Amino acid sequence: MTSIFDEGLAPRDANYAVQSPVDFIERTASVYPNYPAIIHGAIRRNWAETYDRCRRLASALKGRGIHRGDTVAVMLPNIPAMVECHFAMPMIGAVLNTLNVRLDADAIGFMLEHGEAKVVIADREFGQVIKDAVSGLKNKPLVIDVDDPEYGEGVQVSDLDYEALLKEGDPEFQWSFPADEWDAISLNYTSGTTGNPKGVVYHHRGAYVNALGNQAVWSMGMHPVYLWTLPMFHCNGWCFPWTITAMAGTHVCLRRVDPEKILQLIRDHQVTHMCGAPIVLNALLNASPEAKAGIDHEVKSMTAGAAPPAQVIGAIEELGIKVTHVYGLTEVYGPVTVCAWKSEWDELPLDERAKLKARQGVRYHTMGGTMVGDPNTMEPVPKDGKTIGEIFLRGNTVMKGYLKNPTATEEAFRGGWFHTGDLAVWHEDGYLEIKDRLKDIIISGGENISTIEVEDTLYRHPAVMEAAVVARPDEKWGETPCAFVTLKPEAGDVSEEDIISFCREHLARFKVPKTVIFTDLPKTSTGKIQKFVLRDQAKELN
Amino acid sequence: MTSIFDEGLAPRDANYAVQSPVDFIERTASVYPNYPAIIHGAIRRNWAETYDRCRRLASALKGRGIHRGDTVAVMLPNIPAMVECHFAMPMIGAVLNTLNVRLDADAIGFMLEHGEAKVVIADREFGQVIKDAVSGLKNKPLVIDVDDPEYGEGVQVSDLDYEALLKEGDPEFQWSFPADEWDAISLNYTSGTTGNPKGVVYHHRGAYVNALGNQAVWSMGMHPVYLWTLPMFHCNGWCFPWTITAMAGTHVCLRRVDPEKILQLIRDHQVTHMCGAPIVLNALLNASPEAKAGIDHEVKSMTAGAAPPAQVIGAIEELGIKVTHVYGLTEVYGPVTVCAWKSEWDELPLDERAKLKARQGVRYHTMGGTMVGDPNTMEPVPKDGKTIGEIFLRGNTVMKGYLKNPTATEEAFRGGWFHTGDLAVWHEDGYLEIKDRLKDIIISGGENISTIEVEDTLYRHPAVMEAAVVARPDEKWGETPCAFVTLKPEAGDVSEEDIISFCREHLARFKVPKTVIFTDLPKTSTGKIQKFVLRDQAKELN
Repeated sequence: MTSIFDEGLAPRDANYAVQSPVDFIERTASVYPNYPAIIHGAIRRNWAETYDRCRRLASALKGRGIHRGDTVAVMLPNIPAMVECHFAMPMIGAVLNTLNVRLDADAIGFMLEHGEAKVVIADREFGQVIKDAVSGLKNKPLVIDVDDPEYGEGVQVSDLDYEALLKEGDPEFQWSFPADEWDAISLNYTSGTTGNPKGVVYHHRGAYVNALGNQAVWSMGMHPVYLWTLPMFHCNGWCFPWTITAMAGTHVCLRRVDPEKILQLIRDHQVTHMCGAPIVLNALLNASPEAKAGIDHEVKSMTAGAAPPAQVIGAIEELGIKVTHVYGLTEVYGPVTVCAWKSEWDELPLDERAKLKARQGVRYHTMGGTMVGDPNTMEPVPKDGKTIGEIFLRGNTVMKGYLKNPTATEEAFRGGWFHTGDLAVWHEDGYLEIKDRLKDIIISGGENISTIEVEDTLYRHPAVMEAAVVARPDEKWGETPCAFVTLKPEAGDVSEEDIISFCREHLARFKVPKTVIFTDLPKTSTGKIQKFVLRDQAKELN
Repeated sequence: MTSIFDEGLAPRDANYAVQSPVDFIERTASVYPNYPAIIHGAIRRNWAETYDRCRRLASALKGRGIHRGDTVAVMLPNIPAMVECHFAMPMIGAVLNTLNVRLDADAIGFMLEHGEAKVVIADREFGQVIKDAVSGLKNKPLVIDVDDPEYGEGVQVSDLDYEALLKEGDPEFQWSFPADEWDAISLNYTSGTTGNPKGVVYHHRGAYVNALGNQAVWSMGMHPVYLWTLPMFHCNGWCFPWTITAMAGTHVCLRRVDPEKILQLIRDHQVTHMCGAPIVLNALLNASPEAKAGIDHEVKSMTAGAAPPAQVIGAIEELGIKVTHVYGLTEVYGPVTVCAWKSEWDELPLDERAKLKARQGVRYHTMGGTMVGDPNTMEPVPKDGKTIGEIFLRGNTVMKGYLKNPTATEEAFRGGWFHTGDLAVWHEDGYLEIKDRLKDIIISGGENISTIEVEDTLYRHPAVMEAAVVARPDEKWGETPCAFVTLKPEAGDVSEEDIISFCREHLARFKVPKTVIFTDLPKTSTGKIQKFVLRDQAKELN
């Protein structure tokens, strides 16, 4: 039924604008042209220069026939060109496909073919991989080399260099917004621990909203100095290329995670914010005392994945780094829940604080809804902190879907929610806490065993460096927990029995591993432990 | 032309959510149920309680037949019910029409009839006005009295009391988002200095985006303590009812602007943020030293309209209040430009800082575009700080249009921009500075004269309390400036010649008023000087 408010009040140019994060660079370059935008080795560029370079790149690619919906793949570490690509591609409606620089030629070749990349922009460090990947393709993309002065020579693949390409472009290029905010802005392939990687498609509206959500959830002020410890190829750096630009901040680039270098950059440039896996924080702690000296300002760090254990959080805080724990996936533009901190928790003992901080928390302002429910019926579980269910997400920062994969898309969106495949409990206060991946959980004698809980216990053993727990088939119990453990180099003689009896002290009996295997752990290119390999090994034990 | 990114990737429930600011209260009430939401006299309510009351109100109104597109008018000062209405009405798709409590029965009657209000919720202070206004209406709305304990008795209009209405409602009411984010959320009448007021319609998308924009532009942290010095009936309190709620802040209510009371609330509740006209800041300065004592924390204040002069800014800063200067209109949800401050300006002398701060600045992150251009051709003026043009605005926080007024809507949106009717110059750094209203500017011998510039000069004369300048028709020059001046009570003998010679010292000769009239100035109910009355008087001088 229409009302008086529907008559003659349809959207038009004056009052409807496409939501796109590209808009932020125009504002920042116009208001703060002389403010620092990029720091990279000896390179210093302000926002006017950076905006000019983005427009040159957009215009040059357009001149070479790149249009709306064309894929431009990039194989770049966190260098200035990578920031520029996050603005230039959307300026011409092209789709930015950020490739994981740790992948091999086969994986890259698959992605270039599946994503139908028309252009590949690659750092020379990965020249050989790109050369090999492209050689197997029927439709050869245009390859553009990036010769980063911070790297050195590397392998030249193309006659066309990134800086030469920029010279083809117009720094005053009049770019335009897409006609529809639902248009694709980027393509991010999942790591594909099983089967082929899936191509996750983001759109302009979601990227815009998430960029603002990042700012709101972190209450980020103007002019943040942001250190790029998180790879920009990972969920478009969780949309921070756009957030930091919106806030007229400085992108402090970083080719690779090197703790001494990170500490030096934090000190030299008074870094205010960074993101990354807990392993980055760990690495900082293990740096030399000299490297750690002289940092006397607060650094805010957003950490996804498992929260660091209490002693790590304590030591990190002593270093002046304030950790915010978030949770997300490639399919939802990076983090969408945050362990929103409450001031009344500040007074609690470290152990309790760490326990609270380990929870994945509540939805971002900009995420529509989170729900923990039965994986099949999708009925919400009670908020009792005990009942395990799957995490479901919905809202504007959920992907468009998987590229050219309607089956996977339908499956992922069944019942009006995105199925994360992550298992969690819902606490009484509405904070969710991840217990396991759906495919990792162990069911023993009808009881759910969270492999994360068992692994947390193993990590508390002083001799354990790394641990992973998987299901081992068992005639009587169905499954039992099987632990794969890497000991610290300095660990003395530790037996299977030592580990098991340690676990008995800290875990309910049915959760204690029946088997402990001492070994190195297989990992993906992004450093994730490959549990499917371990599961195969556990099966073969029978 | 479609691309691979368009195939099978249409919006659906999991990945498309309507943007609506109502969403924020659900999040805040669920994450921070026990945090303070409302302070009003002796009343203290947390977010769980406030959310329950909003749902009760929504559900009760629905029970009484209020549906999507129905207008609910409110005649309320800044009391808790006013905050609640900003969430309850959009929960059921109703349109919140906030009435200016300073208006008389005729004006209110016009608005209730034009907006087709089905319900009027009114504070008893305005009972008589509402009674009179409603008595003249053919279709009588349901009237609901609000009996605020901070006011006392007042005039009872209805047998139905607000608190009794809430009891009809369900605190667990399952509200739903509108089907379309373009749906109307509120109706705000312009002050109508000439002719009938126009009904400005806002939509959910714009209110959502502006709520986030407020937070971003002010870099507002979590849990602001916000003092309601700005009337919520004015552009929905510039969307701050939604911003403060999103950030889980505290709404400190205030029935009327009383400097002593404001200072007491700032001190007692450690207020962090407030908004309002410069006159509010002025009033604080003139309060007693006792009232000003004991405020030792920083208060951020957003000020629209003319920026305060240097000495006021200096004194205000000494009081611990940090002023941000913004500009907007009813048609654009309140402020859309901000004088974005640069740290390098901090070191400048007070006079220069005040001069920079007086500029209306640059667009909000969430405003699409601002342009200063020729009022007719809409060609942009050069960024020379001299050429005067009209301010044009476009973007997601521009109104849907004027209710039942297609002619005015078309005129306002001509050429794809909203025509503000404000005249400004564009400085070299992209900051705009208002010079006059389009209808106020004086053209004398072919030269533009900014009445604001002349008034600023008059205000610098030590005997002048208030001043307004309008055009007086002139045979030779076309128009000449005519000044209407109210002297300070303590001012001695000041003549027309004194004022004119003072102006000669500070202004180019053609800008100096040819006529000075000492008088009280006619004002609208919102305290704006009615220049059209003065223009009529100036005409009659001939």
